[in-house]
Amino acid sequence: MNAPNRRRRSARRSAEQPIPQLARGKVRNRYAPFAMLSDDQLEAIHLASMHILEKIGVEVLSDAALDRFAAAGAKVDRSNRTVFLDRDFVAEKIATAPSRFTLSSRNAENSVELGGNAINFTLAAGPPNVHDRERGRRAGNMEDYCDLVRLAQHFNAIHMLGNQVCAPIELPANSRHLDTYLANLTLTDKCFHVSAIGRGRAVDGAAMAAIARGMTLEETSHDPSVTTIISVNSPRRFDDAMADGMMALAELGQSVCVTPFTLMGAMSPVTLAGALAQQNAEALFGVVLTQIVNPGAPVIYGAFTSNVDMRSGAPAFGTPENAKANLAAGQLARRYKLPYRTSPCSASNAADAQGAWETMIALWSAVLGHGNLVYHGAGWQEGGLIVSYEKLVQDVEMIQHMISFLEPVSTEEPELALDALERVQPGGHFFGDAHTLERYSTAFYQPMLSDWQNNEAWVEAGAADASERATAIWKKALEEYQQPPLDEARREALDAYVSKRKEEIGDGEP
Amino acid sequence: MNAPNRRRRSARRSAEQPIPQLARGKVRNRYAPFAMLSDDQLEAIHLASMHILEKIGVEVLSDAALDRFAAAGAKVDRSNRTVFLDRDFVAEKIATAPSRFTLSSRNAENSVELGGNAINFTLAAGPPNVHDRERGRRAGNMEDYCDLVRLAQHFNAIHMLGNQVCAPIELPANSRHLDTYLANLTLTDKCFHVSAIGRGRAVDGAAMAAIARGMTLEETSHDPSVTTIISVNSPRRFDDAMADGMMALAELGQSVCVTPFTLMGAMSPVTLAGALAQQNAEALFGVVLTQIVNPGAPVIYGAFTSNVDMRSGAPAFGTPENAKANLAAGQLARRYKLPYRTSPCSASNAADAQGAWETMIALWSAVLGHGNLVYHGAGWQEGGLIVSYEKLVQDVEMIQHMISFLEPVSTEEPELALDALERVQPGGHFFGDAHTLERYSTAFYQPMLSDWQNNEAWVEAGAADASERATAIWKKALEEYQQPPLDEARREALDAYVSKRKEEIGDGEP
Repeated sequence: MNAPNRRRRSARRSAEQPIPQLARGKVRNRYAPFAMLSDDQLEAIHLASMHILEKIGVEVLSDAALDRFAAAGAKVDRSNRTVFLDRDFVAEKIATAPSRFTLSSRNAENSVELGGNAINFTLAAGPPNVHDRERGRRAGNMEDYCDLVRLAQHFNAIHMLGNQVCAPIELPANSRHLDTYLANLTLTDKCFHVSAIGRGRAVDGAAMAAIARGMTLEETSHDPSVTTIISVNSPRRFDDAMADGMMALAELGQSVCVTPFTLMGAMSPVTLAGALAQQNAEALFGVVLTQIVNPGAPVIYGAFTSNVDMRSGAPAFGTPENAKANLAAGQLARRYKLPYRTSPCSASNAADAQGAWETMIALWSAVLGHGNLVYHGAGWQEGGLIVSYEKLVQDVEMIQHMISFLEPVSTEEPELALDALERVQPGGHFFGDAHTLERYSTAFYQPMLSDWQNNEAWVEAGAADASERATAIWKKALEEYQQPPLDEARREALDAYVSKRKEEIGDGEP
Repeated sequence: MNAPNRRRRSARRSAEQPIPQLARGKVRNRYAPFAMLSDDQLEAIHLASMHILEKIGVEVLSDAALDRFAAAGAKVDRSNRTVFLDRDFVAEKIATAPSRFTLSSRNAENSVELGGNAINFTLAAGPPNVHDRERGRRAGNMEDYCDLVRLAQHFNAIHMLGNQVCAPIELPANSRHLDTYLANLTLTDKCFHVSAIGRGRAVDGAAMAAIARGMTLEETSHDPSVTTIISVNSPRRFDDAMADGMMALAELGQSVCVTPFTLMGAMSPVTLAGALAQQNAEALFGVVLTQIVNPGAPVIYGAFTSNVDMRSGAPAFGTPENAKANLAAGQLARRYKLPYRTSPCSASNAADAQGAWETMIALWSAVLGHGNLVYHGAGWQEGGLIVSYEKLVQDVEMIQHMISFLEPVSTEEPELALDALERVQPGGHFFGDAHTLERYSTAFYQPMLSDWQNNEAWVEAGAADASERATAIWKKALEEYQQPPLDEARREALDAYVSKRKEEIGDGEP
């Protein structure tokens, strides 16, 4: 067959069949969490982190946060802005944090439960750059931003957006959060993460989410819409903007996820035990602040512990150390009865085999560790310096594999198939048996990207590897994408909010 | 820098530093096995498989095996060569099989323990074709065979050869097993799998392994050298050659691994429960035969349950269903106190991201399921139709990640690093701290294939993906490879054995 014919046939097939994907739905992890650490080891980490909080302390650059800690009875050394928390105080404060809560978007079906055995996957968040195989590498921009959130909307395995899948750097830094929130709320009807660099950006996100839901901000204070990642400037520093953004969201009853960025050997001790002790101290420190501000405010225990390449200092992900950290952090989160955030990241420079094995190592440990929020779930590449369209598709494929793996198995008749086993003769086959025919179309996970053709057919079709094939899929997904309808009055109110806020902000701070 | 200079520098660097790899050593899986099935579910599978053995029966094409079953008291229907085993008989027979045993090669350090929490990874076995990125696709041949076993010798993460990493098809089919055994025993000092297609090939392997160890075949009957995969012609058929080969090895006190090939929807029911019930019945049936032949003979519970692509009938690996099967089969093997064999296979046509995620899904489930023998561990591609040099390197990398993941974590001081945490100021870094400097060179797993350079450096170095980089590594590994010394008299005895047997075999059957 000549090439043009092949292309035509391929195009026809492509037009006929939508990309196969899992149905939308809540995902539960019914398997027991993985016990990486023994109970004694877990206790040793806990005790070390309590020592850090009591004796070493955490620096807080926000005056407002220092005031809150002091008023609540914590020991505050104003000379070096250091806060010390004793273990009873910590225990008392974190006890008011809910063990599970739900975030709601403007589409009730897309609510996200955080806690228990729920597991949710998000789009990548934060990369400054964008890549796809056809257009190459480029700086983050609003056009790509919109296409990437459209992909998140389209793929059912993605339950939630992260914060800014890429930075739209052509837009003013002080107001681009408004443009991205508007895109999130109009191009998708899934929950999203707001930016909490300062109070203004955080409140804008919560306010706009409330408008899209047809509610007042006040009405969402016990029915939260949004969350945010509060990065800790590890070791042991909470900066001004993050602390203020965190307090703003906690006051509004919105959720935050306190996530120390503890790269072993760089921002943390080179040992897993030391890094976990630090991560735990820093995460709990942030959790305590949310509960001081608003007892009962929803908060997530975030973990982002991996190692660096000790030859270059470059961050590494999907390493054995990262896997252990993902599992151990889940044990810690559960010890404190807090929802758990983890990530399946990769440091590869390409959507290649390395990208896949790194993500798979981190993804398995995220799932086995009972992550409730698997952040940066799709598209993250180069340790977060770029979002890749092809990696996004590959990640969705890997996540779908894991979601299917979490589906329960039946061992009742007729699944035991003793009748079929009796009917099919020795050395025969089950293809044509009634037991097979009744089930074959739904019996197995059907991949969207894996290619199981024999080699001859694969070569004939162009010998495209899983990176090349991913290009066709994201392009098709953008064709298939349907914008979720939004009530016209809410849309107008969102536009008005954005206009008003842009005017208020002007050249100043949000 | 211009290209020739870059190449020179790269060549110099390459010449100076050997490929980083894990040290040789036994691997233990200290984590608890994963409970995919509940106890009740496990019992349901067991009961279904007992029903199959008692009421449906297994066809046996070997007269000698039928005689053995009949003599042992099993019900044998000669009219259709079907054997029925009742559950008490099964329980009684499998009780004599050891729960663990050791295979020894001519190098005592390379012994392979099978059972308990030991885990061992093998080279791929059985592909008719070979591929690498430079020379492309070709039929199996002796030159590639030798290079591939050299790679298995070189990489410490590979504990054992499989049976025929590729078929050297230019050699006579009835005697090529002798050439491959000779290559195994001279180019490597690791344990290997023999071919058990008939008695002759099986005995030759055990005999040659004994010669290489400086022992008589009789002396190895309680100190086994070799094992083999006994494939069942699922559903419910043991063919003549395999049954005879299995009995021959069991009589010699050598080990076998009984492995039904139960592709759901093809050779097995389309349901996981049905496929597991069948797999369990067929595996135990083989185990029973080994114990009838030689009570106490070492035997491995083999599992190879995956699904087909129901659109094409093509086999698929590394699927969610394959992962569940790998985990459940481990539970079954442990229920019967038998060593467990599983596999981390892929159906991808390339050493690409699909190859990596499929292998990672299967590899994680193999490890979590406490596989003792992880067969086809390195190089398997296209569902076993080809062995790939690049995939082999990638698989070794992935296996090394898992081995590192299995290394225990310390949570004692000084690993808790409280002194370092006190020394490093808020927002500072640990790079230069004494606690880091004392440990950094060995703190983390150092990959041989993962590339963590920043994008600029990676592009400058040629932007090679993990498949392209793998080419350089296998070539370097072949340069670094050192043939393990073999006592001259033993070498001569091996050559003499091969000559004598080739003469005996002539144009006939081995």
